[in-house]
Amino acid sequence: MTYSYVSHLNCPKCNKTYNVDEKHQLCECGSPLLVSYKMGELKEIFRPDDLIQRKPNLWRYHELLPVKNEENVITLGEGMTPILSLKRAGAYMNIPNLYMKDEGLTPSGSFKSRGAAVGVSKAKELGVTELAMPTNGNAGAAWSLYCARAGIKSTIVMPIDAPEITRKECQAAGSDLLLVNGLIGDAGKIVAQAVKDYDLYDASTLKEPYRIEGKKTMGLEIAEQFDWKVPDVILYPTGGGVGLIGIYKALCELQQLGWIDEEKMPRLVAVQAEGCAPIVKAWKEGKDHAEPWENASTVAFGINVAKALGDFLILDAIKQTDGCAVSVSDETLLEELKFIASTEGVYVSPEGAAAFAAARELRENGWIKEDDQVLVLNTGAGIKYPDTIDVEVPMLQKEDKIIR
Amino acid sequence: MTYSYVSHLNCPKCNKTYNVDEKHQLCECGSPLLVSYKMGELKEIFRPDDLIQRKPNLWRYHELLPVKNEENVITLGEGMTPILSLKRAGAYMNIPNLYMKDEGLTPSGSFKSRGAAVGVSKAKELGVTELAMPTNGNAGAAWSLYCARAGIKSTIVMPIDAPEITRKECQAAGSDLLLVNGLIGDAGKIVAQAVKDYDLYDASTLKEPYRIEGKKTMGLEIAEQFDWKVPDVILYPTGGGVGLIGIYKALCELQQLGWIDEEKMPRLVAVQAEGCAPIVKAWKEGKDHAEPWENASTVAFGINVAKALGDFLILDAIKQTDGCAVSVSDETLLEELKFIASTEGVYVSPEGAAAFAAARELRENGWIKEDDQVLVLNTGAGIKYPDTIDVEVPMLQKEDKIIR
Repeated sequence: MTYSYVSHLNCPKCNKTYNVDEKHQLCECGSPLLVSYKMGELKEIFRPDDLIQRKPNLWRYHELLPVKNEENVITLGEGMTPILSLKRAGAYMNIPNLYMKDEGLTPSGSFKSRGAAVGVSKAKELGVTELAMPTNGNAGAAWSLYCARAGIKSTIVMPIDAPEITRKECQAAGSDLLLVNGLIGDAGKIVAQAVKDYDLYDASTLKEPYRIEGKKTMGLEIAEQFDWKVPDVILYPTGGGVGLIGIYKALCELQQLGWIDEEKMPRLVAVQAEGCAPIVKAWKEGKDHAEPWENASTVAFGINVAKALGDFLILDAIKQTDGCAVSVSDETLLEELKFIASTEGVYVSPEGAAAFAAARELRENGWIKEDDQVLVLNTGAGIKYPDTIDVEVPMLQKEDKIIR
Repeated sequence: MTYSYVSHLNCPKCNKTYNVDEKHQLCECGSPLLVSYKMGELKEIFRPDDLIQRKPNLWRYHELLPVKNEENVITLGEGMTPILSLKRAGAYMNIPNLYMKDEGLTPSGSFKSRGAAVGVSKAKELGVTELAMPTNGNAGAAWSLYCARAGIKSTIVMPIDAPEITRKECQAAGSDLLLVNGLIGDAGKIVAQAVKDYDLYDASTLKEPYRIEGKKTMGLEIAEQFDWKVPDVILYPTGGGVGLIGIYKALCELQQLGWIDEEKMPRLVAVQAEGCAPIVKAWKEGKDHAEPWENASTVAFGINVAKALGDFLILDAIKQTDGCAVSVSDETLLEELKFIASTEGVYVSPEGAAAFAAARELRENGWIKEDDQVLVLNTGAGIKYPDTIDVEVPMLQKEDKIIR
């Protein structure tokens, strides 16, 4: 049995193709590379029912993933995260069909583990023994841990303001961790230099083509979990944007397989923070690339990305699906975080909270209709961001009573 | 279709029975109550194949759970956590068939969500509108969140030394949180008084009969994930011990259904910390109850329980399965935590780390044989315990390079 139907790498800008059995980073033209599959062949033999008896992790879609030999799969059990119906929160927001996919239930507590699982597995298949990457925290934590399991050495550079818990994860995993007194772009420059100086595999966002394939599985799962009838709107907190690009890629591939309706694509919404909203600005101005955002800053640190390498892919996905881009303030998203936790019992990440706040706003201005089926991606567990909640709590002595 | 085959409550000490449609706490005799099912009826109609198309959460076993009406199910997608093969760590420990079930991939990041999901759902079914409980942190966080989703008011009392993140979870969920300058036993006394004073539902460990049914699903999943052939040894970090009691109950029920071999029960190992090891002491002395542990203290805070109400059930489960009880030092378990993270890429909880350390010790002294299939329960995500890892990390300026 063929484990993967991967075919080759292709450049979405200049259409040059590359061999998938060799290490490649960016295209010669500077664009990220995308992975292509033998879709014609796959359409003949692959059916939704083939999935039924498979384990509930992202490797259930191995035909549509780039790892050719199952022995190279490095897994921590990632994927098939739950989709919850949020009836009470939906009633408040006047979105009766509100759903959330909870990526907090993932190894290391964020959706970044999907990209790491597939990225590290393919790196292992390609013979990589050492890699480096910049990160806003969660991706570095995830890649460190998967690298540990794969026996690959990793060098991680993160901004000093990245969530502190992610340092601990990198350290526990035994990676070479460095902090930089700056933003992820500064970390990226340091990594780029080290990649050159020491001939390392560059695992920066979209500089290797496989992370996106891992993120893609969110889209595959959404389709399967909605019984191959996709929702009307998907809201995604957008920094580097790989999740959104991946979901769009997944849905396109499922249309090619004929597993979902060719006529219906969910409207994809890129959600950003007001303190760092380059995609929103570009979308509003009708541009197909985004300008770097000056003085980027938000509590939703995972989406604090001033310049995304895949900006043109994000903007294209929004455009192709009649989607949009929205930004919300830190104050608004922190309020939303408390609202979701106290009405639905999910302590979401600040990035996830931003997406809920955007859903609320888009419903208020009528862009989301009352009967739309709306899916919000919570990209990580709130427990990774303790600073989002202030605690004021009474202290009792042993002999005290609770008085009301 | 009958959703639940629950029959009644029974007392394992005095055999008195109680109606499952009424609120009950402890038996008149002071013992915890256990839930009984119509096993004869269920054996006729329930088959492992019935599970295949069900969602990968713990409600797939609804026939063996106490909630009668599916509408009362309060779920955050808990259950069917992955079981990973740990080949590299196993090779170091000379346990080639070493596995881990990772309960970190659970809402709120610990196995406590299983008990909360079933406990809160049944409380809702029974008409409970307000409950109270003491906690070492994680259970309180989980119950707060599920109560929020159920619309049930909750009062949570936790020791001041409980993991700080769990305070944030309770606060985010909108529960009434109180700290006590003492241990969980002190919190328990304060809750008991409040239960009396304000006529609250007491959700303390084993004082309501349904939490254990949620924990039981770990045992059901283990059997299903090992394809109804159970492992030889299961190691479980033991504080209140409900997880271990639940796993044992699950396996007994599966034997009654004929789904697993009647002749083979995994040897159950209760793992404690040297600073709080009442079960280990009682087991070594051949007693069937444990004495309260004086000055209990360990970094593995979840198992810092000086006196477990279900001590006799834990000791019985160990005895019936030819298991044992082992304690490890804080120093040893913290070393083990780093070892597992750096060799296998899983940042386990200190409680989980204790169970790995116990496996290592039991292999060294020959109690675990080389060809035993050994399963360690990691009861929570390491990210809830940032203090278990020290970080020393170089800081770069934007213009710096990585020098080797």
